[in-house]
Amino acid sequence: MRRIKLIVAYDGTNYCGWQVQPNGLSVQEVLNRALSDLFGVPVTTIGASRTDAGVHALGNVAVFDTEARMPAERVAFALNTRLPEDIRIQGSEEVPPEFHPRFTQTIKTYEYRILNRTFADPCRRLNSTFWYGKLDTDAMQKAAAYLEGTHDFKSLATANPAVTDTVRTIYKTRLWKEEDMIHFQITGNGFLYNMVRIIVGTLMEIGKGTWPPEQMQTILEAKDRSQAGPTARPEGLTLLKIEYPEWER
Amino acid sequence: MRRIKLIVAYDGTNYCGWQVQPNGLSVQEVLNRALSDLFGVPVTTIGASRTDAGVHALGNVAVFDTEARMPAERVAFALNTRLPEDIRIQGSEEVPPEFHPRFTQTIKTYEYRILNRTFADPCRRLNSTFWYGKLDTDAMQKAAAYLEGTHDFKSLATANPAVTDTVRTIYKTRLWKEEDMIHFQITGNGFLYNMVRIIVGTLMEIGKGTWPPEQMQTILEAKDRSQAGPTARPEGLTLLKIEYPEWER
Repeated sequence: MRRIKLIVAYDGTNYCGWQVQPNGLSVQEVLNRALSDLFGVPVTTIGASRTDAGVHALGNVAVFDTEARMPAERVAFALNTRLPEDIRIQGSEEVPPEFHPRFTQTIKTYEYRILNRTFADPCRRLNSTFWYGKLDTDAMQKAAAYLEGTHDFKSLATANPAVTDTVRTIYKTRLWKEEDMIHFQITGNGFLYNMVRIIVGTLMEIGKGTWPPEQMQTILEAKDRSQAGPTARPEGLTLLKIEYPEWER
Repeated sequence: MRRIKLIVAYDGTNYCGWQVQPNGLSVQEVLNRALSDLFGVPVTTIGASRTDAGVHALGNVAVFDTEARMPAERVAFALNTRLPEDIRIQGSEEVPPEFHPRFTQTIKTYEYRILNRTFADPCRRLNSTFWYGKLDTDAMQKAAAYLEGTHDFKSLATANPAVTDTVRTIYKTRLWKEEDMIHFQITGNGFLYNMVRIIVGTLMEIGKGTWPPEQMQTILEAKDRSQAGPTARPEGLTLLKIEYPEWER
């Protein structure tokens, strides 16, 4: 039995999220079906990140076990011919059988994109959020810097009874404007439920001038979700990559 | 009676093109309906460029005539609330009644995008063409330069019995790679049917090394469509803008 790791990219627009759900089509379900079809036996993947409905990925990670002899690197190509156009494997490799994509140390990087111009652009509506008003990117940058380091992110997450430890470490944030698009990238050792989208909703309030950049510090210290901004829309969010520092060769 | 000019952006994915057609939904039909709804009387637009099925626009132009008193600049905002998300007006202004968006001198700029990486990216599949193999952008740039100036573009267009004069002037071409995306921009005083897509199909053959850059010159001189490359797919093409030099204030 070999364990194969897949890098999975998808346009989340038409899916109910990563995770198999009773109602609605998930990315994982489509992937499991394509794998089962490819190998002629039922195959079930284990995913690294359960992205929400409408959220995209360039580098989500999934593993599956197989007895098949196909070279691990070929799986990506063979699988892509069986997947719809909105899901594309970006690479495949064999990993040790004890490698688990979720219960191991990870470094995740997300990008959130805000299209900031007078009129919406139909061609970019599916992978950015649109805001027509003025946004002060300098203030947003300053506010984002308060997130770096190890903090209790309780204020910046939707409560989840299954998760009691809300302390996470953010290694890096970057925020820049390129023509009419604001890019926000955040890298950390873990993210709570809706955390990136609530961070972005808060950054947008700061960009609009509702709050000064220092408010981010106050919000963190409050440990109270109601102090932060709204949850930004899912379509602006993309999971860029997941690194496994313990497993890098 | 006033004539109003609209700058029209759309994601062409779900349309049979700009022009009203008996089968399939066109951008123009949806726009006419939204305008008729807004003003409470039947309104018909005249478009500048009849883009094909799947082709996008950031700056197509259309005009319509109205007796309504709404300030011209407000039309864009009022109309956008009545349009689907894949069509968005980018601006509106009053123009002289003799302004015709098609029967007047124009400078059009198109962009074609080629995503050039090992695996396709689902999030960019709707507004670029994907090519996994090597493309020599220096050779493509050199080839594109042969297009500049006034030439007979008969080799680089689908034959159209209604158009006998196939001489056009290309003012400028630009081709560059930014990360994994090749951008090609072309500005000219007019484009024949499928001309930009056949130019791109030819540039891609040159980028792959099928032909040297100088072949572009040979193809132009042949005045024979069969000498050029295939017609590149529509989804990579966007009409960026249309300028009206005689009407600029």
